[in-house]
Amino acid sequence: MIDFRSDNTGRAAPQILKALQEANEGTAPGYGADPWTARLQDRFSELFERRVRVFPVATGTAANALSLASLGPPWGLVYCSEMAHINTSETNATGFFGGGLKLVAVAGEHGRIDARALAERLEAIGPGQIHRGEPAVVSLTQATDLGAVYPLDELRRIAAVAAKRGLRIHMDGSRFANALARLECSPAEASWRCGVDILSLGATKNGGALCDAIVVFRPEFEDRLAVQLRRAGHTWSKMRFASAQLLAYVEDGLWLDLGRAANRIAARIAAGVEEGTPRSGTSRGTPMAGIRLIAPVEANEIFLELPAALMDALEAEGFLFYRRGPRLARFVCRSDATEEEADALLAALRRHLPAAS
Amino acid sequence: MIDFRSDNTGRAAPQILKALQEANEGTAPGYGADPWTARLQDRFSELFERRVRVFPVATGTAANALSLASLGPPWGLVYCSEMAHINTSETNATGFFGGGLKLVAVAGEHGRIDARALAERLEAIGPGQIHRGEPAVVSLTQATDLGAVYPLDELRRIAAVAAKRGLRIHMDGSRFANALARLECSPAEASWRCGVDILSLGATKNGGALCDAIVVFRPEFEDRLAVQLRRAGHTWSKMRFASAQLLAYVEDGLWLDLGRAANRIAARIAAGVEEGTPRSGTSRGTPMAGIRLIAPVEANEIFLELPAALMDALEAEGFLFYRRGPRLARFVCRSDATEEEADALLAALRRHLPAAS
Amino acid sequence: MIDFRSDNTGRAAPQILKALQEANEGTAPGYGADPWTARLQDRFSELFERRVRVFPVATGTAANALSLASLGPPWGLVYCSEMAHINTSETNATGFFGGGLKLVAVAGEHGRIDARALAERLEAIGPGQIHRGEPAVVSLTQATDLGAVYPLDELRRIAAVAAKRGLRIHMDGSRFANALARLECSPAEASWRCGVDILSLGATKNGGALCDAIVVFRPEFEDRLAVQLRRAGHTWSKMRFASAQLLAYVEDGLWLDLGRAANRIAARIAAGVEEGTPRSGTSRGTPMAGIRLIAPVEANEIFLELPAALMDALEAEGFLFYRRGPRLARFVCRSDATEEEADALLAALRRHLPAAS
Amino acid sequence: MIDFRSDNTGRAAPQILKALQEANEGTAPGYGADPWTARLQDRFSELFERRVRVFPVATGTAANALSLASLGPPWGLVYCSEMAHINTSETNATGFFGGGLKLVAVAGEHGRIDARALAERLEAIGPGQIHRGEPAVVSLTQATDLGAVYPLDELRRIAAVAAKRGLRIHMDGSRFANALARLECSPAEASWRCGVDILSLGATKNGGALCDAIVVFRPEFEDRLAVQLRRAGHTWSKMRFASAQLLAYVEDGLWLDLGRAANRIAARIAAGVEEGTPRSGTSRGTPMAGIRLIAPVEANEIFLELPAALMDALEAEGFLFYRRGPRLARFVCRSDATEEEADALLAALRRHLPAAS
Repeated sequence: MIDFRSDNTGRAAPQILKALQEANEGTAPGYGADPWTARLQDRFSELFERRVRVFPVATGTAANALSLASLGPPWGLVYCSEMAHINTSETNATGFFGGGLKLVAVAGEHGRIDARALAERLEAIGPGQIHRGEPAVVSLTQATDLGAVYPLDELRRIAAVAAKRGLRIHMDGSRFANALARLECSPAEASWRCGVDILSLGATKNGGALCDAIVVFRPEFEDRLAVQLRRAGHTWSKMRFASAQLLAYVEDGLWLDLGRAANRIAARIAAGVEEGTPRSGTSRGTPMAGIRLIAPVEANEIFLELPAALMDALEAEGFLFYRRGPRLARFVCRSDATEEEADALLAALRRHLPAAS
Repeated sequence: MIDFRSDNTGRAAPQILKALQEANEGTAPGYGADPWTARLQDRFSELFERRVRVFPVATGTAANALSLASLGPPWGLVYCSEMAHINTSETNATGFFGGGLKLVAVAGEHGRIDARALAERLEAIGPGQIHRGEPAVVSLTQATDLGAVYPLDELRRIAAVAAKRGLRIHMDGSRFANALARLECSPAEASWRCGVDILSLGATKNGGALCDAIVVFRPEFEDRLAVQLRRAGHTWSKMRFASAQLLAYVEDGLWLDLGRAANRIAARIAAGVEEGTPRSGTSRGTPMAGIRLIAPVEANEIFLELPAALMDALEAEGFLFYRRGPRLARFVCRSDATEEEADALLAALRRHLPAAS
Repeated sequence: MIDFRSDNTGRAAPQILKALQEANEGTAPGYGADPWTARLQDRFSELFERRVRVFPVATGTAANALSLASLGPPWGLVYCSEMAHINTSETNATGFFGGGLKLVAVAGEHGRIDARALAERLEAIGPGQIHRGEPAVVSLTQATDLGAVYPLDELRRIAAVAAKRGLRIHMDGSRFANALARLECSPAEASWRCGVDILSLGATKNGGALCDAIVVFRPEFEDRLAVQLRRAGHTWSKMRFASAQLLAYVEDGLWLDLGRAANRIAARIAAGVEEGTPRSGTSRGTPMAGIRLIAPVEANEIFLELPAALMDALEAEGFLFYRRGPRLARFVCRSDATEEEADALLAALRRHLPAAS
Repeated sequence: MIDFRSDNTGRAAPQILKALQEANEGTAPGYGADPWTARLQDRFSELFERRVRVFPVATGTAANALSLASLGPPWGLVYCSEMAHINTSETNATGFFGGGLKLVAVAGEHGRIDARALAERLEAIGPGQIHRGEPAVVSLTQATDLGAVYPLDELRRIAAVAAKRGLRIHMDGSRFANALARLECSPAEASWRCGVDILSLGATKNGGALCDAIVVFRPEFEDRLAVQLRRAGHTWSKMRFASAQLLAYVEDGLWLDLGRAANRIAARIAAGVEEGTPRSGTSRGTPMAGIRLIAPVEANEIFLELPAALMDALEAEGFLFYRRGPRLARFVCRSDATEEEADALLAALRRHLPAAS
């Protein structure tokens, strides 16, 4: 069995579990008033080059929905990609936590939203047209749900459109570390310097265990979010065990190492599909005919258009992955995925391709 | 001033206000336990050829949102046209009353949804994929928000797709009487015989005053809806004054007369735009160049693509209507609109067209 | 049959229906942009000696729940009497519209809340104790649900306690006119001059037909409330027909005349119970033994403790009223109730009392 | 510093963190489809002598509010003690998750609710009186928020009252293990055999780290709860790390050992307060004058009425505890609290008592 189902099927990084263990000393006040959580605030503020407030939460769905609920009123509109996780995979959590807060799909390529398409959406609602809902938030998924990454200038273009209308910006960074590894810029540059107000920072999919985080860049949203988290049952009483995980997650650049590792395996697979498997490092092979990447592989996910029979053959051989359509498969590389696993997949694709086509 | 802004700018039909007056006799128990409301149940059951439950409500938004909230769970998905009033003009009411209940836009022409597009949407969600939300309801706007009308066989095709997946059908009939006048079929044929479970029945836009109605065709949804209406402050204590209005609305076919009257004026305008104004009843004139109906005029609304300068000219002359885009105007015919008003509009269009083009 | 069930079983005042009829002229823009609604703002501002914003709504439940939802956050606490209509009779509407907004019962006599009991409740929640909910609003029912009326100084005492903690004050004035008739003070004195921020102003129970009102004394709550009303389906498109009713309701002091009329009948019954029926205006009779008013009759409601057999006997004779316990009955006087009805009740009480005791 | 603030300030049991570590092997499907979570179902079914469904969740607030939301409709009423954690300390979470679901306080002693008081509450709402809300659930806190424990026959009496009206029973068992240790009966006897439909099973306060559990005894509530958990962001993708903790929690009776340990320390303190500190095991000392237990100490919490000056003195010496009133302090014993800590507290009480009284 080789597992490409999701980055959440993988192990936790040992450093993270070790930190959890080390936090098990003495007594500490509950609900985030402990020293680990205080240190977390400082550490992330340093990391993001700005005073931030960090809230550990159990899941990415909680991070997204509660962030959005704190940014927009119940009659607000949240602009996102049709393919955004918040739109496709969170069981209406935004609408629920937001008291009716509504998602509006905006066109764009590869899971991104397009700045111009956003501008058009906004123009369709005049000031004071409350019956249309109140344009309130833009939510950007970085990396996107098709494995692409927004370049910084695209983020800035979208932020400019949003700012004109007073919209807030939320970033769903369940794969923020993968994006950062790709962009090779600082966390600050990839977030608040591009206009992001609140970041859902994923850890679980990138070697974490039981917690993700919300990073708030604007103090005015903190209190409202804190009370919503408490009410939602997302404020652990033994918070130290969550904060310790997040401290370990960024310690010595662990998060980036993990993100880079996953990206590298994904790039290896993508290269194999596009170029065949090169004999040597320099020679460029031939693409696999009949297989196509439907989006650029810029993080740790690969979306392949391929014959149904080929999917059958892979499954028969023990490869685990998710079908996303009759001819569409998603392969996700965990941070603990290996080159051997990648090469095994490429070999299997090559082996079965002729018969399947 | 000639007013084409909306069908809700018009007067109430005198019969309706008279009925309200006549209901002002003696005492009557509150919250719908009065004789008028009892009679309303009987009268509508007769009209729809089936035992129905009718709830008078203050507005169409209440009728729609509360109907949908009674049909779908908070994690449900409601499929509707991108242009549906529930999607564009009700301030997230469905999401609010439905506790997060989510609208999903389905493609289609002229404000309709397409049966095949719906089928594709449904196929994308496998059974048990709760993270995607639960496909729950189809909401059809009849007449549509672009002034078209679903033919019965199209309704049946959509109902068949919905039934396969166990979805419920809601009809937003804020202009149901206009649609009925067009279809020339019975209320039963245009509703539950096509699979409709709950109908929002508009009266306000068609000569009513202060109430619309919810007509429930399936008893299993009644109690849940009744309690939601009470909680929403949509159960009048002096219900007799609402029920009396609705009784008058259908008495002697008043609703159909009013719908037909509004449709006829709209058709007159459409004909004038498409054919010029014919000299005689039989000769066919020439279309107005540079003006285009963007949807078939099958009820009482006309959507015209036309030069911006022409809109300016009409406004300068005192015509009232709403702009829906830089080159798009909506003209709505009230049930008390007149042929003179229609002809004045056509004349103005003809007069200003050359200069504006 | 003599009907003491509720003040909402009665007729509408003819002046109100006439006004509705007179508003049926010409076209008018929808959703409150019409001249009647504009005039309503001016008229009520004059009446309340301050710029106010008035929103007509369908019911008292809508008025209360939406007012409270605009005053408190979803994690807020609303302090009210155990017996308050919002606590006993609105199907959780406050919690629903308020997104979880919670009612907290405060002790007091005769349906009032006690200023000291409120102060104690507030002291139990320290600043920053968000897990306890946020003290946000006090809701006062005037007249109370036991037919008593808060004197102005008591209102001021409560307001002072509330102000110390930054709480807002809502008044459920479904019987505000009855209270005003009793207090013999100006509307301003009985509302914002006592600290009231938003008033639910009842009309239905006092000779209205299909609408009540929300009167907002603080501009900062208007916009938030306006959008919530729209979303709740409580913004009529043909608003003129609602505003016209409310204009007529206060014209020439109609509301006070109606309130006074209802109060007078209630006082007559109370006097009869407490003093027997005096032969002449001056002589004082003897109280009816075995019957007791459980609260002072200061508005139009009478709560009688009386033998069960006496309730049976009254019902057998055709009197309509509600039982509120095995030995407790409520009698409500409509604005169109008559002295004959009151005297008939008193006579029946006297007639059946000996046998029932 | 000796810490009696809460049982959530303590360490996690080493066995629980070890289990988490051991679960970090290989890949596993997400969202509860892993082998650990499957084993959890079996293990708890065995433990509770009945097929149950277990959902790990992040906190007790989530466990309570989501359980209640799955048991009652939004217009439902949940009967609980005035002092119940859900009523005092969860930021309106029940109302929020329940869409307006309302808490109603029922009288009783020591944080319990009284069966007769419940019966009276229920009698006050006739069938069909939807405006009063729908009686739906009874929530019992075991052990109570004053440190008492319901005996089984009292639970059964309450269940009988509830059953007559078709109400469901929820048990807030954030200290269920402490109660079980006291009752010395089986988990089944203390839960579903007494009528409990859903149990919030606490682990965090009793040596857990980052998760509690919901145990569902009736299959008909499982699916509805599962989807609500997912939507609430309370379904971890790497669920194995939560399930492994819960498996370890009950392995070899760990939970009961921990509960017993905490109870024993509390009993030691209570005995010291009531009897003075006995010289020998058999002799009975004298109670500390001026200090009073306000509820029987049957679990791990002690509520002491004592002079304010005594609280000051304890704090000055480094004891940590929470004040619950001007003369009321709460002391909670962690599962890792020691006899030395207890004795130090008793000694300090004795030492400062004379001066403080």
